[in-house]
Amino acid sequence: MREMPGSVGTVRTEYATFPAPLTLESGAVLAPVTIAYETYGRLNREKSNAILVCHALTGDAHAAGFHEGETRPGWWDGVVGPGKAFDTDRYYVICSNVIGGCKGSTGPASANPATGRPYALTFPVITIRDMVRAQKRLIEHLGINCLAAVAGGSMGGMQALQWAVAYPEAVRKVIAIATTARSTAQQIAFNEVGRQAITTDPAWAGGDYPADSPPVQGLRLARMIGHITYLSDGAMREKFGRNLQDRESVGYGFATEFQVESYLHHQGDTFTRRFDPNSYLYITRALDYFDLAVDDSLAAGFSGVKASFLVVSVSSDWLYPPYQSEEIVNALAANGVDVQYCEIRSNYGHDAFLLENGQLNYLISAFLDHLLVRDVMETGAPTIVERASINDAARIMIENAVNHLPVLAERGDLVGIVTSWDIAKAVACGYGSLDEIMSRSVVTASPDESVTEAARRMEERSISALPVVDADRRVIGLISSDAISTLIGRCA
Amino acid sequence: MREMPGSVGTVRTEYATFPAPLTLESGAVLAPVTIAYETYGRLNREKSNAILVCHALTGDAHAAGFHEGETRPGWWDGVVGPGKAFDTDRYYVICSNVIGGCKGSTGPASANPATGRPYALTFPVITIRDMVRAQKRLIEHLGINCLAAVAGGSMGGMQALQWAVAYPEAVRKVIAIATTARSTAQQIAFNEVGRQAITTDPAWAGGDYPADSPPVQGLRLARMIGHITYLSDGAMREKFGRNLQDRESVGYGFATEFQVESYLHHQGDTFTRRFDPNSYLYITRALDYFDLAVDDSLAAGFSGVKASFLVVSVSSDWLYPPYQSEEIVNALAANGVDVQYCEIRSNYGHDAFLLENGQLNYLISAFLDHLLVRDVMETGAPTIVERASINDAARIMIENAVNHLPVLAERGDLVGIVTSWDIAKAVACGYGSLDEIMSRSVVTASPDESVTEAARRMEERSISALPVVDADRRVIGLISSDAISTLIGRCA
Repeated sequence: MREMPGSVGTVRTEYATFPAPLTLESGAVLAPVTIAYETYGRLNREKSNAILVCHALTGDAHAAGFHEGETRPGWWDGVVGPGKAFDTDRYYVICSNVIGGCKGSTGPASANPATGRPYALTFPVITIRDMVRAQKRLIEHLGINCLAAVAGGSMGGMQALQWAVAYPEAVRKVIAIATTARSTAQQIAFNEVGRQAITTDPAWAGGDYPADSPPVQGLRLARMIGHITYLSDGAMREKFGRNLQDRESVGYGFATEFQVESYLHHQGDTFTRRFDPNSYLYITRALDYFDLAVDDSLAAGFSGVKASFLVVSVSSDWLYPPYQSEEIVNALAANGVDVQYCEIRSNYGHDAFLLENGQLNYLISAFLDHLLVRDVMETGAPTIVERASINDAARIMIENAVNHLPVLAERGDLVGIVTSWDIAKAVACGYGSLDEIMSRSVVTASPDESVTEAARRMEERSISALPVVDADRRVIGLISSDAISTLIGRCA
Repeated sequence: MREMPGSVGTVRTEYATFPAPLTLESGAVLAPVTIAYETYGRLNREKSNAILVCHALTGDAHAAGFHEGETRPGWWDGVVGPGKAFDTDRYYVICSNVIGGCKGSTGPASANPATGRPYALTFPVITIRDMVRAQKRLIEHLGINCLAAVAGGSMGGMQALQWAVAYPEAVRKVIAIATTARSTAQQIAFNEVGRQAITTDPAWAGGDYPADSPPVQGLRLARMIGHITYLSDGAMREKFGRNLQDRESVGYGFATEFQVESYLHHQGDTFTRRFDPNSYLYITRALDYFDLAVDDSLAAGFSGVKASFLVVSVSSDWLYPPYQSEEIVNALAANGVDVQYCEIRSNYGHDAFLLENGQLNYLISAFLDHLLVRDVMETGAPTIVERASINDAARIMIENAVNHLPVLAERGDLVGIVTSWDIAKAVACGYGSLDEIMSRSVVTASPDESVTEAARRMEERSISALPVVDADRRVIGLISSDAISTLIGRCA
């Protein structure tokens, strides 16, 4: 077991096979159904701390940590691990490969039990809802009735939304990032061009290509198209501009000359070594069909949901633009659903859901209710000793521009708090010592409680700041409603 | 000759062949060079009214009117013709097919004189500058030293910009629409994916495909990708949405189900019947190489230009976004060049340069200096007869909220003008009749002069409005600087 701070360490993909037929949205049945999955962290006794993380188009079950002998971590390692947004010290995080895929779950490359040969195009067409149905089996198999959260970006976000709609009793929170509730014409168009690239490659052979001779040219082309859509124009300008690859001047020819060409070729080539062309067809088709609207109304589509939602879009994402997230938010709000929305400021484009770990960790942590007081408290805030004079207290307040001064006993433990209001009281009534004016019943915060809890306590008591004290009641910081507002203010 | 209002009628493509070698930017030479072109309107005696219109990636010399037996007009018929922006009653409009193309000009499908067989990939790589060099030959061949204007959208706009840089003495005005001065990484990326689609089609055969068996699948795919980029997301939503094609419900399969798929297939299929795959490679490569910056500075690149410019972008164009037009405008302005800029509000996306005829006709007409006074004058403006009292004049001014009253003789012809300033003068000095206060030397405008000329006259004389008079000096309207500002104010 590799020990790395913030990493779940070495992990392994597990497989669960369900012999019972899975009835698909099309009416077709699939059996048996194998699901590849990984888990990180420990399921608690109440089985209430499970979070399902869903992958995008070409992802897999390997969301975090390292496979034995590999140096590249899972696809969402930036937000899954000890102390990260999906905190594996607190949560039991599950990630499964979608059905229709090619990373261990049943898909078109799996053996058709009726023939013993790969399904290829005899594999039934699947939908996002079918993917979620299969995941539900896995979740039940793991003994979980209700997920603390389902989260994902892009196609993973669609699955998260679909979970809330299909199983309202089984999801407490949904985190949907850089996604849509219904694929648009432009999204379908890009998917279709990718499929055409594959199916017009003669090597595709109607889907019945040998495993060792797939239609690599078509798949490579589909991936290159995809990669253009995953980056913003600005990111491409910044990353490649008009830079030439390994040459000083243009060559007036058709060989690779620009860095951006080289990048696309590389992305296309490596993809063909890890992905099945038929899976690409099936999964993009599932994207096309995705539409949570009922009678053309998204609000109607979300009418039964019970979860609370965090919806996140990316300012420069033109494949799943922010307006599509706003449509989700509006449809949820129309149902009175608890929904938070944030547009991440990022130049990366769609890929930001895999890259903007700082913003995502903050947003997701806060939403999952475990942004801790210690994460936002101010340290080094001034205090005053019990025996000081009222004049001293006033001077410290003014010099430090603070309104609250924790009052400490000689051993350093908290005995009270004094405010500018108390000073005014002293002046008005002629009090002479701190002892006469300070409040002794001080409401405090613990460094390890959630910011949300501390904020709620402040609001209930109409207090604008709490001293943060350790187990010995020593003051280690101050949490103020101003600081919390600043944090929350980062999002609309 | 077909007679249609606003149409140049039946037209024919002409061909000019130049035996002298054309030295290309790469250093390679091309000979002979044939250029396919069309002309509309008549060249005036001074040969000063010629406008060159340049086509985009897959366009041709047929910009306006109809070929014998065809019902579909040329590609820019909406703005080229009698009374249109490129007014063939006033201008001699020329459009030529670019070299490297496949519509009559020398390109990779032409016979290589050295072998008698198609050039294919032995055709030299060409650039936008080479296209313009070839056009320069054609223009000289037509006896023209200086073009009244060069205009185009997309790649046509690049040619227009290149003309101003390469031949500053030979271009008076440039109209560059939905274009860029240097191709970006994203644009190169889309071009490269299109090329890869063609060159990975086995039928491409290294470029040496038989004329009757070209790599249609690859070219079709390249065109489908292109078409996604030509439309905005919003236009696709509006035009196709998630509508199904000839079916009531989804079929859970890979056949064409969505309208947008059908549209792309249709666009791809028809394109393969009219375009040469090798030409697609050469022309997209010319786009990639296009970069007017010198030492990474666009301002330096434009330092020698002498033309005045109209730069037009399209709000929803994400392939050549408005910021790229703004870069052109800023670089021109940095050189003190006369440049007008307008961002067309349109939902069409890049294709708007072929579709937004209303806005384009207005903008181009105004820029080409033949937006006429009659087009913007106010009619029905109040006048006063010569014998009226000063009180009457004041009352009419106030009631109509005008500051100028043309004074008419009994037969209706203009004899003077009276303003509120004159009224004030009358009150101050005790004058009693219009005759004593009105100005008799009235500056007027003709309905058939250009707005720019009338505006210049107003500015020179510090007059805020001119009566518009016909040949008999009868007042038929009023043109005011306010009305002109309003028009100009439509653009930044």
